[in-house]
Amino acid sequence: MSAAASARRVDPSAEIVVFEQGDHVSYAACGIPYYISGLQKDIQGLVVYTPDYFERERNIRVLTGHEVLEIEQRARRVIARNRQDGSIAARSYDSLILATGAAPRVPAIPGLDGERCFTVRDLHDAIRLNDYLDNERPGHGLILGGGWIGVIFAEAFLQRGIRVTLLEKEDHILAGFDREIAAIVEAVMKGHGVAVEKSVSLRECIAHSHTRSLTVKTQKGDFHADFLLSAAGVAPRNSLMPGTHLAGVPIPTDDRMRTSHEGIYACGDCTSAYNLVAGRYVYHPLGTTANKQGRVAGENAGGRHALFGGILGTQAVKVFELEVARTGLTSAEAKKMGLKTIEAITTSPSRARYVPGGSPITTKVIVEPSSGRILGAQMAGLQEVAKRIDIFVPMLHNRMTVRDAVTLDISYTPQCSPLWDPVLFCLRKAQEMLERG
Amino acid sequence: MSAAASARRVDPSAEIVVFEQGDHVSYAACGIPYYISGLQKDIQGLVVYTPDYFERERNIRVLTGHEVLEIEQRARRVIARNRQDGSIAARSYDSLILATGAAPRVPAIPGLDGERCFTVRDLHDAIRLNDYLDNERPGHGLILGGGWIGVIFAEAFLQRGIRVTLLEKEDHILAGFDREIAAIVEAVMKGHGVAVEKSVSLRECIAHSHTRSLTVKTQKGDFHADFLLSAAGVAPRNSLMPGTHLAGVPIPTDDRMRTSHEGIYACGDCTSAYNLVAGRYVYHPLGTTANKQGRVAGENAGGRHALFGGILGTQAVKVFELEVARTGLTSAEAKKMGLKTIEAITTSPSRARYVPGGSPITTKVIVEPSSGRILGAQMAGLQEVAKRIDIFVPMLHNRMTVRDAVTLDISYTPQCSPLWDPVLFCLRKAQEMLERG
Repeated sequence: MSAAASARRVDPSAEIVVFEQGDHVSYAACGIPYYISGLQKDIQGLVVYTPDYFERERNIRVLTGHEVLEIEQRARRVIARNRQDGSIAARSYDSLILATGAAPRVPAIPGLDGERCFTVRDLHDAIRLNDYLDNERPGHGLILGGGWIGVIFAEAFLQRGIRVTLLEKEDHILAGFDREIAAIVEAVMKGHGVAVEKSVSLRECIAHSHTRSLTVKTQKGDFHADFLLSAAGVAPRNSLMPGTHLAGVPIPTDDRMRTSHEGIYACGDCTSAYNLVAGRYVYHPLGTTANKQGRVAGENAGGRHALFGGILGTQAVKVFELEVARTGLTSAEAKKMGLKTIEAITTSPSRARYVPGGSPITTKVIVEPSSGRILGAQMAGLQEVAKRIDIFVPMLHNRMTVRDAVTLDISYTPQCSPLWDPVLFCLRKAQEMLERG
Repeated sequence: MSAAASARRVDPSAEIVVFEQGDHVSYAACGIPYYISGLQKDIQGLVVYTPDYFERERNIRVLTGHEVLEIEQRARRVIARNRQDGSIAARSYDSLILATGAAPRVPAIPGLDGERCFTVRDLHDAIRLNDYLDNERPGHGLILGGGWIGVIFAEAFLQRGIRVTLLEKEDHILAGFDREIAAIVEAVMKGHGVAVEKSVSLRECIAHSHTRSLTVKTQKGDFHADFLLSAAGVAPRNSLMPGTHLAGVPIPTDDRMRTSHEGIYACGDCTSAYNLVAGRYVYHPLGTTANKQGRVAGENAGGRHALFGGILGTQAVKVFELEVARTGLTSAEAKKMGLKTIEAITTSPSRARYVPGGSPITTKVIVEPSSGRILGAQMAGLQEVAKRIDIFVPMLHNRMTVRDAVTLDISYTPQCSPLWDPVLFCLRKAQEMLERG
């Protein structure tokens, strides 16, 4: 919808039609955990704009309940089925924007398609899960996958009074973070009573209809629960893209969000984004990137020349009282790319020690030793971690070195930071490590 | 002391001597309001390191109670008086670092040198003021000057149960901020019961010894109180610098913190700093800048080649529940420099609306219309304002344009920001204003 609204903004007279196979557009998918936890009682509170709003205020035709079956690229037509009456109709276009999003990846073991097995991607999924929780009042849930979605739902279930066991296939949770930072998150989760099992190979899920429960068999033994949530990541929905044969591959675009087919743009979770630090396209689906890409695709489709500036792999999560955030490359990612790194890790206070309410922040800065260039940063702590990571964002965007960054004129006031903010404190340690060589 | 410690770090064998006319070194001057408010009971809590610590752990000789009378630049000698025994001695040097700081400016009206008139700069001043408050239990204080020091002490006095009237000579408080942002601070202060009078010309202060109170006469009438605090800014202490004839002028240095005299460095509040946005040296004395300059001066004096990267005019203040912060140029500063500007002002939420605890943040971004370059930013709000201003810091350092900054990959998680963080939201408005021309 951000693409459609941007196209309208740059071209007030174009005919703009949106096909949506479900009932909802423009909703806050990131708010679903708050609906599941009970903090947000009404699912309508997650709807940002209704189809009606777009029709009325933006003159954008929104066809909900319409499944696009095929794109006829040469004829520049879309073939769509009206799910209500089953009718099929073609619609021609000048420009087409693919914003088909992503679908949950479900671990490839038998039994995960049963009744008490859930994935959560859209509002329908959320309602289905919530109805189950309301009606059956389960006492214990299993989460398959310790990425940020699994971690957030662990908190949501716990807030709803449901005991949680989280199974992670790797040897640490939060694959997008390095081990030291993930360990802080794991400790907080365990402190709240979440059982976390790592290095787990799933084998099979068995449903027990008499007890309305299930057992997940793994190499580490059996895990019993009332229900499970698969949170094993997502895969781009690319099947509508003409000429695509491989499932799970993002639709390639350039920095104007144009695909290889003339007149067809793609944006959001169905496509990839250029990571400016990695120097290549990566699949890192996030709402904020999707929104920006949507604007760029919409503006270009509407006749403007707009560019998407690329991403840095920034991400923030709040888990219980803890904020964790990252930007740029992790050590693990840098290593995979064959880069040599220096890694500074510090733990330093969030505020001057003579004002109350401060707490320690753990910071990790990853540096290329030959150039001194900052490659990435990660932080964990109770206060203002996400916005502190954002300070690194324009540093990375501008390829700053530690030497230049360490004297940056970052704000200081006792109630918001110590004289040496954790950001600069860790950069200072990195600088000392570089000087020692 | 940051200069001395840095010199020691780069040269383990040098003889390092510090002359300090008072009793304390290395204390948190920014913590004094917390001592006055009663939050920090013990003044020793503001002392970071004692002279003993430096002697013992860093092999730095600290001569407290020693007033430097003169620097003999040709002979490379310092003449100092021991305040305890009155003896005068000369001491030679290879490198000398001037870190003489700043002195309070007192408004030039008669009567401000009396008994119940205070300035607060160092721990001695703080103890003197605190003793007065303890012993005389005054009910009403006047603050002369609505800069950030005046504003912070207004809160400190109020927390101590003292009614406060603040007199400001300009037509808005917080001269370092633009009118719209200062107005938000003023409203919060008034909401807490601080009386704020603006456009006040001071004429005279009259002490009443029988009532132990005083009257400040102004063109707007008489203001009565038990005591007053002058908070009308500070002036660099430059008198020791050989060849200096003008009071109140910062000691000029280059980016290695070298003065025009060989072997003499200067750093901190006695000197100026190069403002990277303004493109010139400005006097903007702040602890964080002083600390960084001290490190650079110390490293250079110790034989290393270190550069100070300049400042951006960043500043943050917390006043009651409100955080305000700035970086770069204000509109007023840009106008004084003859620059044309576009100014985007937005008020937008700090968090996603479906999570509790969010609040509006007012953001102002100042842009050069011809280039689209961001010249400055200011923010006010209840949450994470200081660290959000810091996101602008590397943008300004790297002379980013609005166009490049508006798609920066800034973090998003519902509990820490909405999908469009106030930083990007305001940049987006600036971009739309630029596009409309």
